[in-house]
Amino acid sequence: MDDIATGSAPAHAVDEAVRLGTLGRDEILDRLARLSLDRRAAVFAYLAPRLQVELAQRMDRGALAEIVTGMDADDRADLFNLLADDTQGRLLADLAPPEREDIARLAAHAEGTAGSIMTTGCASLGAGATALDALDALRREAPEEPAMHRFHVLDAGRLVGVVTLRDLILASDDAPLGELMDAAPVTIHPDASREEAGRLIARYDLPALPVVDEGGLLLGIVTHDDAADALVAETTEDFHKSSTVLPFAENLRQAGIGLLYRKRVVWLALLVFGNLFSGAGIAYFEEMILAYVSLVFFLPLLIDSSGNAVSQSATLMVRALATGDVAMKDWRDLIARELAVAAALGLTMAVVVAPIGIWRGGAEVAVVVGLTMTVLVLIGSLVGMSLPFLLSRFNLDPATASGPLVTTISDGVGVLVYFSIATLILGA
Amino acid sequence: MDDIATGSAPAHAVDEAVRLGTLGRDEILDRLARLSLDRRAAVFAYLAPRLQVELAQRMDRGALAEIVTGMDADDRADLFNLLADDTQGRLLADLAPPEREDIARLAAHAEGTAGSIMTTGCASLGAGATALDALDALRREAPEEPAMHRFHVLDAGRLVGVVTLRDLILASDDAPLGELMDAAPVTIHPDASREEAGRLIARYDLPALPVVDEGGLLLGIVTHDDAADALVAETTEDFHKSSTVLPFAENLRQAGIGLLYRKRVVWLALLVFGNLFSGAGIAYFEEMILAYVSLVFFLPLLIDSSGNAVSQSATLMVRALATGDVAMKDWRDLIARELAVAAALGLTMAVVVAPIGIWRGGAEVAVVVGLTMTVLVLIGSLVGMSLPFLLSRFNLDPATASGPLVTTISDGVGVLVYFSIATLILGA
Repeated sequence: MDDIATGSAPAHAVDEAVRLGTLGRDEILDRLARLSLDRRAAVFAYLAPRLQVELAQRMDRGALAEIVTGMDADDRADLFNLLADDTQGRLLADLAPPEREDIARLAAHAEGTAGSIMTTGCASLGAGATALDALDALRREAPEEPAMHRFHVLDAGRLVGVVTLRDLILASDDAPLGELMDAAPVTIHPDASREEAGRLIARYDLPALPVVDEGGLLLGIVTHDDAADALVAETTEDFHKSSTVLPFAENLRQAGIGLLYRKRVVWLALLVFGNLFSGAGIAYFEEMILAYVSLVFFLPLLIDSSGNAVSQSATLMVRALATGDVAMKDWRDLIARELAVAAALGLTMAVVVAPIGIWRGGAEVAVVVGLTMTVLVLIGSLVGMSLPFLLSRFNLDPATASGPLVTTISDGVGVLVYFSIATLILGA
Repeated sequence: MDDIATGSAPAHAVDEAVRLGTLGRDEILDRLARLSLDRRAAVFAYLAPRLQVELAQRMDRGALAEIVTGMDADDRADLFNLLADDTQGRLLADLAPPEREDIARLAAHAEGTAGSIMTTGCASLGAGATALDALDALRREAPEEPAMHRFHVLDAGRLVGVVTLRDLILASDDAPLGELMDAAPVTIHPDASREEAGRLIARYDLPALPVVDEGGLLLGIVTHDDAADALVAETTEDFHKSSTVLPFAENLRQAGIGLLYRKRVVWLALLVFGNLFSGAGIAYFEEMILAYVSLVFFLPLLIDSSGNAVSQSATLMVRALATGDVAMKDWRDLIARELAVAAALGLTMAVVVAPIGIWRGGAEVAVVVGLTMTVLVLIGSLVGMSLPFLLSRFNLDPATASGPLVTTISDGVGVLVYFSIATLILGA
């Protein structure tokens, strides 16, 4: 630990940040000021984004510029994007040119892209340099982990190869980088999604993924820890969407009543109108219900089973698309397989409900219920499976294809199919 | 690339493995045999687990022992656990003692634990050794990344500190490890969950997390890439459970019809019996339905809105518990907040449906529908939020608390509440 005065402060910056987060704003500024600059920047970067912004507004300009200069490039850019315009202007004026240009470059990338989670400050040399040159460069620039774990070989700014720190250490001092490097490194474009960055890092077990533009110029790197954090955030967003909650990034522990209300009420209310279709369907068949009131007994059963089948299909496919297990081109093969699985499930379910149908309403009702069940499970599974592909095709997020939204639609269809089949078989 | 004969083989081992996976088994063995040993072990380790097992049964004992010896310790143990007993026995006999003991130690850990995803083979020395000694040790043992990025300082096998590769490189040659090391490193017990390992690695941005037993003995490390893979697998499992699919690990692209049928039919069928309660509830109130058939119009609307509210609450909480944003002790504070949010949502929904109630059935029906909506959204949200805590309390997986299972239960409650309120207000 760099600072004796805090005595019992936690050893790790992230823990100290969590502890500070529980104190009053002035107290936090006070304690931060007593830390060494390195430690202060490290702890500050771990504070919740909103808290960082609040403190940035309160501290004097010099103190802010100091901390921002000491932060990692990506954390710095993230904070910058959250500041008010005038604060941004003052900060840029207070920073040295290298940091000012660095922020400008990083902060320009749209949220959710690889460029938005990349960092700069990775060491590089030409292919003619030796392993010893590279190690000396690393010692001079001393980048943070995991930027330190990859050395980038450039030719006039363009990335031509990557050398692992491991290979630098194992090589003889005079080995030229051109021989040590991977000449076909995995890279990503800054406009690609951060999810794609996470997938590449996971697929190739990379500590860091170089970000290059169309011309091959090295713009920065996405580190494995930032990619992992981005994947957790994206997954949480998928869970929110699948339950018709408007996505939000705040920690659930701290989210306010107003925020939760706003994020939940929208779909809750909108789906009412979706449900009116089911209601209208039922109203249309009101005479049939009066004639065969036992049909209503099966309504929750059929609607729920159908919704359940849709939900299963859709969730499996949404998740597989998200993890990259399945690609858009796989739809044809998968729909054939889904047909077989859904037919088997539909028939099984029909067999399960038929006895109940006989018991509650007789043989004819059993036929209606069994047939409806088969049709609904079949259609539901096929639609549930296809909807994520359709949404993806039109560049919409497939995650909304599972959960209450799609089951509300399937309820309307279910009501129509059920009472239509009933009309057909039990007579108009 | 190590092998000229394959000509156009992909540069990265994982891509070559994906390519091989599409070929016939004998063809795969043939191509593997033509690779250098290092490359062969690397590519083999990236093949799908089932394929590894198939090939292991087909290749001769010497070839298998060679590959297994060349694999990383954790991949080796994973393969071992999948082999048939007699194949395991033969393999152990063919391995050299170091590999044999290593497998025995690693393979003994239960699935889903930190011990089950850890690897061994990390370099270590005592606190009196210098930075140069450590770098020499790393050069000699040449562990794979990311094991190379952390040097462990031991005292009679017990972990006393961790030095980053960065610090080793930046330090002067004669700096004692005791001064460079983090003397209070973050560690994990082998029996802790792999999810916990992933959370620690994410929280502290570690390339590798040391695994120590109760006595402080260093058993191995969990690398960040394995932790990330484990988190993706755990999350996929959560998605499966939330949609009442029995969890499975196979890639959805390759899963067979039989597997998908088995994993989906169980809950689909079981929930039928859950839905019988809703049906029974409706049957009990059949006379009321005949008297006020417009009540049925609102049934899908109320049931779905209630299920939607439950689903929103439950999903938010399940996800927050999984990512560690929320802990068990937070339940009291959170239930108070949920009460406020749910009351606001319930009243909003009542206001939305009341006009529809007046339109379809008059003022009395509007009161029934509005009141039911408020009660259902309120109860649904509170139960949806609490169920994950309850399941967690009894050491069950909270992930089953969202989705069709819990909405089926809420349907039964919804039917009871709706028609009871109707009976109360519209008269028996």
